[in-house]
Amino acid sequence: MTALKAWPNAVCHVTMCAMTDGIGIIGAGVAGLHLGLYLQQHGVPHTIYSDKSAEQVARGRMLNTVAHHNTTVKREQALGVDHWDLREYGYFCHHHYIGPTPETPELRFPGDFEAPSRAIDYRVYLPKLIEDYTSRGGDFRVQPSVGPDDLAKATEGHDLVVVSTGKAGLSSMFPVRRDGMPFEAPARLLCGGLYHGITYSDPKGVTMSVAPGHGEVLEIPMYSRDGFVTVLLFENVPGGDTEVLAHANYEEDPKAFNDLVLDKLKTHHPAIFERVDHASFGLTGPEDVVQGAIRPTMREDYAELPDGRFAIAVGDAHNVVDPVIGQGANSASYSAYTLGEAITEDPNFDERFCRTYAARRADRVNAIFDWTNLMIGLPPAPHLLQVLGSMSASRPLADEFTNNFNYPERQWDNLATPARAQAFLARHGLG
Amino acid sequence: MTALKAWPNAVCHVTMCAMTDGIGIIGAGVAGLHLGLYLQQHGVPHTIYSDKSAEQVARGRMLNTVAHHNTTVKREQALGVDHWDLREYGYFCHHHYIGPTPETPELRFPGDFEAPSRAIDYRVYLPKLIEDYTSRGGDFRVQPSVGPDDLAKATEGHDLVVVSTGKAGLSSMFPVRRDGMPFEAPARLLCGGLYHGITYSDPKGVTMSVAPGHGEVLEIPMYSRDGFVTVLLFENVPGGDTEVLAHANYEEDPKAFNDLVLDKLKTHHPAIFERVDHASFGLTGPEDVVQGAIRPTMREDYAELPDGRFAIAVGDAHNVVDPVIGQGANSASYSAYTLGEAITEDPNFDERFCRTYAARRADRVNAIFDWTNLMIGLPPAPHLLQVLGSMSASRPLADEFTNNFNYPERQWDNLATPARAQAFLARHGLG
Repeated sequence: MTALKAWPNAVCHVTMCAMTDGIGIIGAGVAGLHLGLYLQQHGVPHTIYSDKSAEQVARGRMLNTVAHHNTTVKREQALGVDHWDLREYGYFCHHHYIGPTPETPELRFPGDFEAPSRAIDYRVYLPKLIEDYTSRGGDFRVQPSVGPDDLAKATEGHDLVVVSTGKAGLSSMFPVRRDGMPFEAPARLLCGGLYHGITYSDPKGVTMSVAPGHGEVLEIPMYSRDGFVTVLLFENVPGGDTEVLAHANYEEDPKAFNDLVLDKLKTHHPAIFERVDHASFGLTGPEDVVQGAIRPTMREDYAELPDGRFAIAVGDAHNVVDPVIGQGANSASYSAYTLGEAITEDPNFDERFCRTYAARRADRVNAIFDWTNLMIGLPPAPHLLQVLGSMSASRPLADEFTNNFNYPERQWDNLATPARAQAFLARHGLG
Repeated sequence: MTALKAWPNAVCHVTMCAMTDGIGIIGAGVAGLHLGLYLQQHGVPHTIYSDKSAEQVARGRMLNTVAHHNTTVKREQALGVDHWDLREYGYFCHHHYIGPTPETPELRFPGDFEAPSRAIDYRVYLPKLIEDYTSRGGDFRVQPSVGPDDLAKATEGHDLVVVSTGKAGLSSMFPVRRDGMPFEAPARLLCGGLYHGITYSDPKGVTMSVAPGHGEVLEIPMYSRDGFVTVLLFENVPGGDTEVLAHANYEEDPKAFNDLVLDKLKTHHPAIFERVDHASFGLTGPEDVVQGAIRPTMREDYAELPDGRFAIAVGDAHNVVDPVIGQGANSASYSAYTLGEAITEDPNFDERFCRTYAARRADRVNAIFDWTNLMIGLPPAPHLLQVLGSMSASRPLADEFTNNFNYPERQWDNLATPARAQAFLARHGLG
């Protein structure tokens, strides 16, 4: 064709599409690994760059307090990394406790999942997936994190760069969205830890305990390095009675720390406190606590590199959310998996690719961000309180709310506005 | 719940979601009818408002030169309106003719669909669907078109308004998108008509005949009021040798008109001319010709009405495209069907609903708009010429291009940029 004359760089284009080094994945958290495992499964050339080896992750401090809901478990099954039988390692429901207020009595009510969720300590989970990945021939490179300025050079030869970690300031490559920082300051000060000495609820589930005005505790049955233990994630309202937990130093005085935790459970979270075995209760170890705060932030989906290639943000590099409803890791896995699908469907890694992929994941990822922020907003939105209160009077309502932890976009369809909450209640004959 | 106090207007919200009068659909073209049939099938209350009765449509002038590709036929099957057996009424391929240029010889090559397309005159098609709809109990109201100012009043009681016609200036409710008017002036001046006296190609297909510098002819085997006839849609480049057809007046001198058409076919479109039976050739009647021009326009997806309800644009109200690749009706049907799905999934007709629906249809609808505009752009993009030329050398390439008339977003994945076109060719071992 004469038109061929018009293509001096045709060869480089063709090379691009032959994908010399394929995809460069920065970060080996759940997003990086789920994407790597997906691309491996579909024969797409790629490399995972991690700043830690499997051993370093396994021997390190507790990373987070993550639960995987069943939609994420289904992705793990598809990726061939479903190593923990749900009958033994899964949990099946949410137990809700809402403390009394001047106007309302204490409320206790359960909500069921249609299929189980699962919480595995990431110091067990991530090393196992790294082992799966490398044993299947994956190209897993351990090297120091690169910053935004070194990224292009460090990923030379890759046709697309996927940034799945916020480490080394990489997030800053993706500007915060106009609506991407809804809070002036963190809405909760966190104290998450692993504990011995708490009998699991029956049926085995996560307890979401709310102390009005002071914050929440998530009690999660988790499998960790020492076997089955319990996560207590204190979500403390700044200035509330439990904020002290975000600053308490375990290593200085382990007994005082454990006593303080027990005291706050006793005062604000009886539905958990009543299952404590005082003889054996305590943090499982000095490395098993995370304290701090997360400022919810949503960033742009992609950025163009100086050489014209594109970098796509997934997981923490794209957005961070408060752990109050345990959606962060599920959001990261979803973003990674859908990116894998997009890569196999359209290996043209230009701005159209980035925009189409961003649109594909937007509904769920944005819903997780908005729903999480609604849950920690202060004062709580009246329509949220009404829904939570109504759940105590309607098991079907509570079950739908609980199962929608798997479908955050559906949850947001029910909660996004007061009118939507009313329609949600009306559909259940309430409100 | 005490929070209930916070909802003086709870009742109206609940009413909203009970959908008093449900959906108000303005317009009874393919979009309005496919949406109405979908909602009818799913038990969603609604009304179709049309400015014409089935009889008026059946007895009227030719409306367009529409073909339905198989993805649209599949929607017709799902809606129970697949009345025209594809073995008899369908067509199976595209026959391409590209006239010679100083640098390139004449090219002739076919491309196959995986499943047949079908062209039924809308004066047969629409009345049949109106009959289906009303015989199934549909609320079909014939009344004069309302303009933008009367729309809210005319649709009072409906929870959502769907505007599927641009008549009476309704399009103006939806502002033109910033990138929504890519041409200063129409790129083609049209003369579409129904003709006797052209033997169908074998295998039965649409012939896309290109006269470089002058425009295209689409020859479509269509079933019309008088049975099987042939559409000749002349897409005339302004200033080109065939522009005269856009202005020729059939009624003034039918023989002169037919002779002019024959002369232009003979000069520029031999692949069609050679199948003409001169004894019987001619326009099927004075009402069977449409002349004019379409200025491609893409508008915003929705608008808020003064009373806070929302109106969503589908079909011509949302965008109009040149008929050169016969995608307009398929786009309208797709928009209508996906809107029906969205309505049954989330009956909260607020801005979130409109935004989520808009995102859902965006990839295909935008691809149709962009691809169509690439096809009529002047001068033709070199990468488009290269792909068309390469199709003559690669049957798999021609078949993929042809079948992608069913999947415009995939076509655009292959054509959106020169680099993508190179990757498309490279995937077929070309370029």
